[in-house]
Amino acid sequence: MLIKLHKSSSEGEINHISHLINEHSLRHLPCLQNKHIAVGDQMPDALLKELMETEAVEKIEKIEKPYKLASREFKPQNTVINICGVKIGGKEIALMAGPCAIESIEQLIETGLLLKKSGVKILRASAYKPRTSPYSFQGHGEEGLKMHKEAKKHHGLLIETEVMDVRDVHIAAKYADILRVGARNMQNFDLLKELGRCGKPVILKRGMSSTVEEWLMSAEYIMAHGNPDVILCERGIRTFENSTRNTLDLSSVAVAKTLTHLPIIVDPSHAAGRKDILEPLSLASIAVGADGLLIEVHHRPEVSMCDRDQALSPEEFHKIALRVQLIAEAEGRVVDLS
Amino acid sequence: MLIKLHKSSSEGEINHISHLINEHSLRHLPCLQNKHIAVGDQMPDALLKELMETEAVEKIEKIEKPYKLASREFKPQNTVINICGVKIGGKEIALMAGPCAIESIEQLIETGLLLKKSGVKILRASAYKPRTSPYSFQGHGEEGLKMHKEAKKHHGLLIETEVMDVRDVHIAAKYADILRVGARNMQNFDLLKELGRCGKPVILKRGMSSTVEEWLMSAEYIMAHGNPDVILCERGIRTFENSTRNTLDLSSVAVAKTLTHLPIIVDPSHAAGRKDILEPLSLASIAVGADGLLIEVHHRPEVSMCDRDQALSPEEFHKIALRVQLIAEAEGRVVDLS
Amino acid sequence: MLIKLHKSSSEGEINHISHLINEHSLRHLPCLQNKHIAVGDQMPDALLKELMETEAVEKIEKIEKPYKLASREFKPQNTVINICGVKIGGKEIALMAGPCAIESIEQLIETGLLLKKSGVKILRASAYKPRTSPYSFQGHGEEGLKMHKEAKKHHGLLIETEVMDVRDVHIAAKYADILRVGARNMQNFDLLKELGRCGKPVILKRGMSSTVEEWLMSAEYIMAHGNPDVILCERGIRTFENSTRNTLDLSSVAVAKTLTHLPIIVDPSHAAGRKDILEPLSLASIAVGADGLLIEVHHRPEVSMCDRDQALSPEEFHKIALRVQLIAEAEGRVVDLS
Amino acid sequence: MLIKLHKSSSEGEINHISHLINEHSLRHLPCLQNKHIAVGDQMPDALLKELMETEAVEKIEKIEKPYKLASREFKPQNTVINICGVKIGGKEIALMAGPCAIESIEQLIETGLLLKKSGVKILRASAYKPRTSPYSFQGHGEEGLKMHKEAKKHHGLLIETEVMDVRDVHIAAKYADILRVGARNMQNFDLLKELGRCGKPVILKRGMSSTVEEWLMSAEYIMAHGNPDVILCERGIRTFENSTRNTLDLSSVAVAKTLTHLPIIVDPSHAAGRKDILEPLSLASIAVGADGLLIEVHHRPEVSMCDRDQALSPEEFHKIALRVQLIAEAEGRVVDLS
Repeated sequence: MLIKLHKSSSEGEINHISHLINEHSLRHLPCLQNKHIAVGDQMPDALLKELMETEAVEKIEKIEKPYKLASREFKPQNTVINICGVKIGGKEIALMAGPCAIESIEQLIETGLLLKKSGVKILRASAYKPRTSPYSFQGHGEEGLKMHKEAKKHHGLLIETEVMDVRDVHIAAKYADILRVGARNMQNFDLLKELGRCGKPVILKRGMSSTVEEWLMSAEYIMAHGNPDVILCERGIRTFENSTRNTLDLSSVAVAKTLTHLPIIVDPSHAAGRKDILEPLSLASIAVGADGLLIEVHHRPEVSMCDRDQALSPEEFHKIALRVQLIAEAEGRVVDLS
Repeated sequence: MLIKLHKSSSEGEINHISHLINEHSLRHLPCLQNKHIAVGDQMPDALLKELMETEAVEKIEKIEKPYKLASREFKPQNTVINICGVKIGGKEIALMAGPCAIESIEQLIETGLLLKKSGVKILRASAYKPRTSPYSFQGHGEEGLKMHKEAKKHHGLLIETEVMDVRDVHIAAKYADILRVGARNMQNFDLLKELGRCGKPVILKRGMSSTVEEWLMSAEYIMAHGNPDVILCERGIRTFENSTRNTLDLSSVAVAKTLTHLPIIVDPSHAAGRKDILEPLSLASIAVGADGLLIEVHHRPEVSMCDRDQALSPEEFHKIALRVQLIAEAEGRVVDLS
Repeated sequence: MLIKLHKSSSEGEINHISHLINEHSLRHLPCLQNKHIAVGDQMPDALLKELMETEAVEKIEKIEKPYKLASREFKPQNTVINICGVKIGGKEIALMAGPCAIESIEQLIETGLLLKKSGVKILRASAYKPRTSPYSFQGHGEEGLKMHKEAKKHHGLLIETEVMDVRDVHIAAKYADILRVGARNMQNFDLLKELGRCGKPVILKRGMSSTVEEWLMSAEYIMAHGNPDVILCERGIRTFENSTRNTLDLSSVAVAKTLTHLPIIVDPSHAAGRKDILEPLSLASIAVGADGLLIEVHHRPEVSMCDRDQALSPEEFHKIALRVQLIAEAEGRVVDLS
Repeated sequence: MLIKLHKSSSEGEINHISHLINEHSLRHLPCLQNKHIAVGDQMPDALLKELMETEAVEKIEKIEKPYKLASREFKPQNTVINICGVKIGGKEIALMAGPCAIESIEQLIETGLLLKKSGVKILRASAYKPRTSPYSFQGHGEEGLKMHKEAKKHHGLLIETEVMDVRDVHIAAKYADILRVGARNMQNFDLLKELGRCGKPVILKRGMSSTVEEWLMSAEYIMAHGNPDVILCERGIRTFENSTRNTLDLSSVAVAKTLTHLPIIVDPSHAAGRKDILEPLSLASIAVGADGLLIEVHHRPEVSMCDRDQALSPEEFHKIALRVQLIAEAEGRVVDLS
């Protein structure tokens, strides 16, 4: 259930309502900023009646799905997230690309300038790296984020980066325009809560063995803790098939589009784990209805510090962008390659 | 390895070569019609030398992949299968559609005439039905095939139907233009061998838990037993995700295209198990490079004898065909909706 | 639903009842030998009433599960299958072992005599081999079955062998004491129907991506076509984990035991695909409640024609049998190693 | 590689060696407490030579596996973790049980006293709860931990509890005897690092879609950051099978035992998600070689705040413990039910 409050409602009024609900031991999450209170379970009639008569309450909506704020029941029209003029979820396809890890300022500037020519508006690169082995390079941390911000002065693209540790969320938010939750952290609930309070849009990657419903529930965590700007990202699931690193599940994009108003992008690079099929996978992602692509590009893939086999060169990326544009147009959408 | 024989080589010459190979206890499959002998393992040098000096031998090709005839190593250019003028694997996208099961002549005629207007060239409908329960309708058998042939006089579409039992292969081949192997029978090796000798093109569905390599090995079975006309069909794999019946693995199409010259089509109906996402899945299938679509359409879905939730109405199919045409064009391909 | 007929009921009476049910277009399978008629769906009240008044009908049982004859609702007590004195499904654990493929009479005699000393009562060995590649050894066919029968004169063990082709069922039934359906053929429904009429007990391996319910439905196919002697065999399912060839699903044994009265055995060899963990997996199989084990043993594993890495030597098997005996006793069961 | 240092080596000496390795840009993790330095990659010969001649270095071991400290190559004999006299990994089977969530002091005392009679030495109960929905009960937090500690005064069992947030690790370590990492956090690498510094033994649950190798790499994270006391816990993986919530992968226990010296326990409750098969799964877990069991028991399952269907009553648990004892004895192990 969702209690929508009048825009003019005060913190005191919200606290009062929260207090009323508490008396019935119902789990709920008030959002002062967005003026609503999400309630997980059914409400007893007496409480419902009392709330309906409370002045600060505008209306109470029954939402069947276990996710409330993320559902189309709550918000039928697509959400368009506007980040400094770059829109995600609207008519335009958002191209995000960049290296797996931040290696140097030079790398970021060079890659950014090259990708800008291929329609990329958002530069991805991680300062904190989730690595299977404790003996692998773990990223440059805050130093890397500083490089990101410095390089931005040259290329002007928006900055996207991953966060893994709750203690780093607010540090990363100082430097980046978009924060990313990796697949391994999709159900790191404390991280999701912290991202609800970070003030920046969040890309939420689907867990390698998460159902579409669990994915939306994780989006709900971020939203219910105050952040409506969530972008879902499909990146492949674990199956028996071994010709690709993971199995890209494009049906999940089609299914999620029926359930949620949030934008959905696709990361074919981490799904495939091989670059020779990134072009057809990118085209298929746009055709199935994705709002953008997140692709690994390294200005010199042969010396990349990680995931060398899956990073495209900027030239290879450009070729894909041109074909993506054609499919986007056939879908009635736009890729701005200017 | 593949021993290519001169076109003029006689049965006697082939038998002689087979005899030579047998002396080394090497498993091999001679194909009289296509004038080649496929050998699974490495050949001893002595044998290789002897064969090279045999007159009937044109050349001997080393093929690394475990599948030989199905590999791009053996045949780099795409195979185009021409069935009475309908081409599969070329520039044109092949639309195949129709009901799950043959119910009556009227059903086949009505569906055929309606689908013809939407660019469908091949009418699918099964006389033999693989059903999980022995208590479910098992299909009309040869009677159904007769209906198929009779209805064809009215709609003129090619006939596609499933075979399950080795004893039915040659019966079905009398009536149908294309035979289909269902996902459950992808590794029914005796059936594959029999289809190698059936004289009709075969659609080979990928097994629900089969790797791309196993899929190609099953194609190899059909080809090595004499039938070069194999069309691969991706139809979803089993995973933990339960929002779709199976997980459509479009990466497998992209991967298989790098490995084989055979045409590949996609069946989104059985993958999804729900019709509300068939449009985006069809578009994505074409964008990823599929050569055709196999879609379940019933002239009156609400009374369909099986799989009611996944069958489209002819009107719904038409709407999809129009959008598929746009994507095909963006891919430089053609859908003939005339 | 299940219509139980009086033992004295004649073929004419059964046909008459079948005719009555047919008038309501209900799919049903009469079993003359076992004097019952299984009906898949709900019956209309009028038909129910009419049948209740028919003399040949003893009683009509409502069975909720989609499988009827295989369910514990139909038969609460465990089924014990007695094959020439060897009992499967009772207090005694059945040890079945032997080579993957029949190679020679000498192999069968030697293996049989050695395994006999380790409590094995049933010798497994295949004459028809399902192979992923058409270029791999496909088995000796009927010649192999003849070797099996000849070798039996020396070792005296029961013979178990696989059938793949409907046309081979009755040939194999002439030589073997138990027929086996491999995982790839679990939903080869025509094969299951033929096995319903073969007159020999059948081991039904679970498909690599089959649910427990589908497994029981396949058992139902065999039973509904006249053969009550079905032994289920768990042999691993396909998952992302790659340290074993398949993932042995011992929960499925525990779950199936709650649902069916049929005996269940476990094949740890094909699940693991490596012999170093067969001992712990065998012990766990017995502890979880399996009624027997099917294990690959080759008298000289290093020269085995297939699956070399997973075949045990007779000495290794003997060591496992001794430990299995201890676990069996802790479970209140028996392994006869005499 | 693993550089073992003399026991007498000083912090200064270790820092000096670390400095030498740094000059070659090799990722390494020194452990002051355990006097060793783990190095991920191969070392250049020059460095190797230099280190061999360094006085503080006792020896340098080459370890092939990607995990070093967790491998049997590093430590062939089983690790036995002794927590206040309770040993895990030795001859005795460790029984751990308790409710999913801490609800009240009374609950903990009552459950603890009842379980004590069934051989339980460690009481599990979570104060921090990972929940798919933000609207579900999230646990009592530190208040819950205080209840745990208070209740311990009455029942005397060791306390086991889950941590999810890096910021809670040191709080939880003040109250609990063993900390647990849930399946969803198996690759929450910052949490693993923090647990390396917590000073308490850690139970590391296997991720729902993690391979055995990834599981051991996560153990390596904890160990490489200073904590040698890691207990692995198998709890089921995600597959297509839906008769159990997850698929308990007992092969993984057998495989991991060949690769690591660490103790391994099994949690059948979360794998099955249903209590009717916990007895056979518990027996199979011990038979396959597990060192202990982690089972959900609620003193009144019908009012449990979460996972109601999978919690056993203390009486049901007692019955299982008696049978586990028999299997343990057949395995040459011991369950102390006194």
